[in-house]
Amino acid sequence: MTIRIGIAGYGNLGRGVELAVAGSPDMKVTGVFTRRNPETVVAQLDSTRVFSWASLLEGRDDVDVLILCGGSKTDLPEQGPQLARIYNTVDSFDTHAQVPQYFSIVDDAAQAGGNVALIATGWDPGLFSINRVMAEAVVPTGATYTFWGRGLSQGHSDAVRRVAGVAGGVQYTIPAEDVLDAVRAGEQPKLSAAQRHRRECYVVLEPGADPDVVSAEIKNMPHYFADYDTEVHFISAEELARDHATMPHGGTVLRSGVTGSVEGTHLENSQVVEYTLKLGHNPQFTSSVLVAYARAVHRMAQAGEAGAKTVFDVAPGLISPKSPAELRRDYL
Amino acid sequence: MTIRIGIAGYGNLGRGVELAVAGSPDMKVTGVFTRRNPETVVAQLDSTRVFSWASLLEGRDDVDVLILCGGSKTDLPEQGPQLARIYNTVDSFDTHAQVPQYFSIVDDAAQAGGNVALIATGWDPGLFSINRVMAEAVVPTGATYTFWGRGLSQGHSDAVRRVAGVAGGVQYTIPAEDVLDAVRAGEQPKLSAAQRHRRECYVVLEPGADPDVVSAEIKNMPHYFADYDTEVHFISAEELARDHATMPHGGTVLRSGVTGSVEGTHLENSQVVEYTLKLGHNPQFTSSVLVAYARAVHRMAQAGEAGAKTVFDVAPGLISPKSPAELRRDYL
Repeated sequence: MTIRIGIAGYGNLGRGVELAVAGSPDMKVTGVFTRRNPETVVAQLDSTRVFSWASLLEGRDDVDVLILCGGSKTDLPEQGPQLARIYNTVDSFDTHAQVPQYFSIVDDAAQAGGNVALIATGWDPGLFSINRVMAEAVVPTGATYTFWGRGLSQGHSDAVRRVAGVAGGVQYTIPAEDVLDAVRAGEQPKLSAAQRHRRECYVVLEPGADPDVVSAEIKNMPHYFADYDTEVHFISAEELARDHATMPHGGTVLRSGVTGSVEGTHLENSQVVEYTLKLGHNPQFTSSVLVAYARAVHRMAQAGEAGAKTVFDVAPGLISPKSPAELRRDYL
Repeated sequence: MTIRIGIAGYGNLGRGVELAVAGSPDMKVTGVFTRRNPETVVAQLDSTRVFSWASLLEGRDDVDVLILCGGSKTDLPEQGPQLARIYNTVDSFDTHAQVPQYFSIVDDAAQAGGNVALIATGWDPGLFSINRVMAEAVVPTGATYTFWGRGLSQGHSDAVRRVAGVAGGVQYTIPAEDVLDAVRAGEQPKLSAAQRHRRECYVVLEPGADPDVVSAEIKNMPHYFADYDTEVHFISAEELARDHATMPHGGTVLRSGVTGSVEGTHLENSQVVEYTLKLGHNPQFTSSVLVAYARAVHRMAQAGEAGAKTVFDVAPGLISPKSPAELRRDYL
């Protein structure tokens, strides 16, 4: 039975979901649901239909799993519980501090509706979270490090663009390679996020703006840049469009620790576990994770489960289109 | 409730399990079970008791999960089904071609006994298997590569030591760095295991043995070395003992692929997923994986599950000592 996927919201994430489902033979897109006038939304693929948000709220019987492609700040806190009451859902909620509260309200809704609602998936939170938990469970004595980048940070790019005198710009988060190499070699330095990363900004000035003033304002911006080693490069609007239009990202989760550490013995040995992503297109990759987890959500719902879930609750085999017997035969 | 662990067999793996349980506050070792005379077996830790194999077969009520630390060739095919009928078990069965058959006989036994029996865990099969499955599920268009090493291969070291004129020796499997870098950069070369790895042997000659003859015999050995770029270095017995006594290993699972690949669009982007282990002590790490999965087996049994399982069936949160609420709060 083909899994029928609804796409709630059609920004970068929704567009990525549309393509990822097209690449999954066991799934098909029922349609994109938009709060805009559906007639004004043109999908990437001719085969994709566009429906109104109202038709989603009425409750449709042709959606097995609804993938929520809105933002964490204002969309998901409202849509997550509302839609988990009607559909099995998957979302990429990523406001770390609010996860427990969001889980709780989505859980209530999903339980009430008898649905499965998987929250906070993607790569971080998501695949990185799994690696943090598993590496620590296997090597309990040690330290875990998360490095982000090299990648375009949407939040920091927005911050740069809000500075007076800036006509456009982007910001790249870059891990400190020397720190990364030290942890890979088994060291366990104590370092803040600011010590593990540096920041590079590519900025187009408005006519007449003073580069020194703009540069100083960016570098001294609290929270975003002040604690970091930050470079500001001024470029033309043409260069911005030509060289900085893609959305690369990635990062590394590293666990550096020891096994055999028992007092009174001399049996300790270094163990290093690394998970690294090099993503040519951040939203497309996140979307691909959402789609793989939609497969798991469908299976968990079919098995009679209900309520909110996270990636920690999902057995790895459930996200694969292969059967358990195939996985045992070909992947162990 | 502390999880009570039995250790069936006391070689490198059993010794690693003993230490890993000592490092897990939610677990304790009930004892080591040995086929030798228990009075001749001295455990690493004073607190570890040693019991006879017969007492294990009688059925004990002080073992929640039994970790099978025997070998895949002769021990596990017999012990796996026999002990899964009496206990919840975890093992590291690693004869890839026989996994489906082994799963089936262990499943029958575990179902009959109402126990959970997790087979074929460790790092490969185990954590590497999970990464092969998950990376392919997220990036279905692409190729998966497994590289092993740099590490000491027990099977290849044994093969070297069987050559006439060899008094002692070890073999290291080493991934081809240029191939590894090409895949990391998003390339998808078609290469055999022999093209992805090279082999280094460190050999102590018997008195009077001809190094050229020994070297040629090793390099031309079918299956083990003939297809590989193999180096043979002759060293003294003192050097072998001093420089080659540890058991490092590791490797890399790489998925190199694309998202957004739909015919007729131009939306394709490279995505690379890497999982790398650098292990100071191969058996201790494998043992630590077994112990973490013993925690999951205990929880699955408590939840009423029964039968044979693989790592593909185990949700990541189940191997962590933390509660689901803690994991959601601190690791997403």
